[in-house]
Amino acid sequence: MTAQRYSAPLSAAEQSEFVPFLHELLATATAVIQPLFMSGTVVDSKSDASPVTAADRGAEAAMRALIEQRYPAQGIVGEEYGVKAGAGYRWVLDPVDGTRAFITNCFLFGTLIALEREDGAGWRPVLGAIAHPVAGLTLIGHDSEARLHAADGSSRRVHVRACTQLRDATVLATTHWSTGEQRGGPAVERVIRAAKLYRTWGDCFGYFALATRGADLMLDPSLAHWDVAAIVPVVEGAGGRVTAWDGGDPLAQLSLIASAGPLHDEVLALLREGG
Amino acid sequence: MTAQRYSAPLSAAEQSEFVPFLHELLATATAVIQPLFMSGTVVDSKSDASPVTAADRGAEAAMRALIEQRYPAQGIVGEEYGVKAGAGYRWVLDPVDGTRAFITNCFLFGTLIALEREDGAGWRPVLGAIAHPVAGLTLIGHDSEARLHAADGSSRRVHVRACTQLRDATVLATTHWSTGEQRGGPAVERVIRAAKLYRTWGDCFGYFALATRGADLMLDPSLAHWDVAAIVPVVEGAGGRVTAWDGGDPLAQLSLIASAGPLHDEVLALLREGG
Repeated sequence: MTAQRYSAPLSAAEQSEFVPFLHELLATATAVIQPLFMSGTVVDSKSDASPVTAADRGAEAAMRALIEQRYPAQGIVGEEYGVKAGAGYRWVLDPVDGTRAFITNCFLFGTLIALEREDGAGWRPVLGAIAHPVAGLTLIGHDSEARLHAADGSSRRVHVRACTQLRDATVLATTHWSTGEQRGGPAVERVIRAAKLYRTWGDCFGYFALATRGADLMLDPSLAHWDVAAIVPVVEGAGGRVTAWDGGDPLAQLSLIASAGPLHDEVLALLREGG
Repeated sequence: MTAQRYSAPLSAAEQSEFVPFLHELLATATAVIQPLFMSGTVVDSKSDASPVTAADRGAEAAMRALIEQRYPAQGIVGEEYGVKAGAGYRWVLDPVDGTRAFITNCFLFGTLIALEREDGAGWRPVLGAIAHPVAGLTLIGHDSEARLHAADGSSRRVHVRACTQLRDATVLATTHWSTGEQRGGPAVERVIRAAKLYRTWGDCFGYFALATRGADLMLDPSLAHWDVAAIVPVVEGAGGRVTAWDGGDPLAQLSLIASAGPLHDEVLALLREGG
């Protein structure tokens, strides 16, 4: 059985055009973010009470300026500055995924970027990036491959592990339920108890670990479009499988189960059980 | 009231002698660990079922060789290769603190080193290091200061935040209780619920975050001598306070509450309440 895929194929012409530009965007974001990390930068609260800093705002503003200069007709969707309508393609930006990590001096925050293409059925991601500036490591993925880029300019293909059952799996899941941010509840507990190793490292790092053979399953019961759009091409490019919590389209539902593949159905079944 | 301190003072002569050697030890460990990170290195199980890799073993062996060459009369206590008796001073080594992080490709593992000095009452730590090789950041502390060293050779003094009450505090605590590794139980839940922000990032990173103003409280209900010995001089050097879970000597009890200082008694009181 071939699992449904949720990123659309990237053509060779698109790859030549947009992958170098994606690297430019990431370098632009990192140049803003890096000096603010561990600097004691002021933390403001957004309307949803989540924290935001000059790193989030400055990195997104710098990326938007670069996109508007290079591709003025294309759209932009950003966590901090909203939607700019456009045609054909749009760039989806989360300058600092894991702002709580960023303000806690934690190396696990990342920059997420997706390129989405308009087709008959709406927008689909064709290219995604998960960049961890402190580690100097960036994953870039599209339908047929995912590559890990190091700060020295080298890169290598990455692929998920061959993990076929949950009892052999390393499972990651965002944060801790006692904070009220994790809404998985008893269903997630069942998954965790069935796994070999569980850790709470979440945000985009969970998907980075999955794609680089550090983990086999990452769970996120609720997240934003700018997170899902970047993650889906990276995980699918690395040979993994993504679905929403109910097994459907994660871009429609904005929840995410990302796995090494063969164990995905076992996880879906456990999450479906009552409770 | 001046809080009890658990690291002993480092003399200027000791600082000149041993701080450069500590940097040598850290460089030696990093040279072994770095190439094995994200390499899919084999994971073995120790007798207590905890994981161990060639990074743990190789880094400790390399550090022990360097110590035996330079200071043949001094003692060594290492997580992987045990105790070598010695006089005057001994080096306490945890080559990879957070082996589960290391094998999950997580940037939060670290190398811990302490120098302990023998006095009438036994061994006391006088110098400690928490090094995060992936981030290229190392904290070195002793009784009167803690410094953050970057990969480019620069360094700066660090100091804990002025956090006076738990309701303003960012709290970190090791892992997740559902794994059975966290034995804090309801007492820790009380602390977490009273805090401003809670995250599960643990291992030595929690103390790194505390010393660099990323967090205000780190809790570890159970850990090993090689962890506590390195952490105590770093946190005290950064102006923070450490005690065991019951308020006493963390080197005697092998549990650790490390805080920005003024909120410490409030935390001890919450942990002492029944349950």
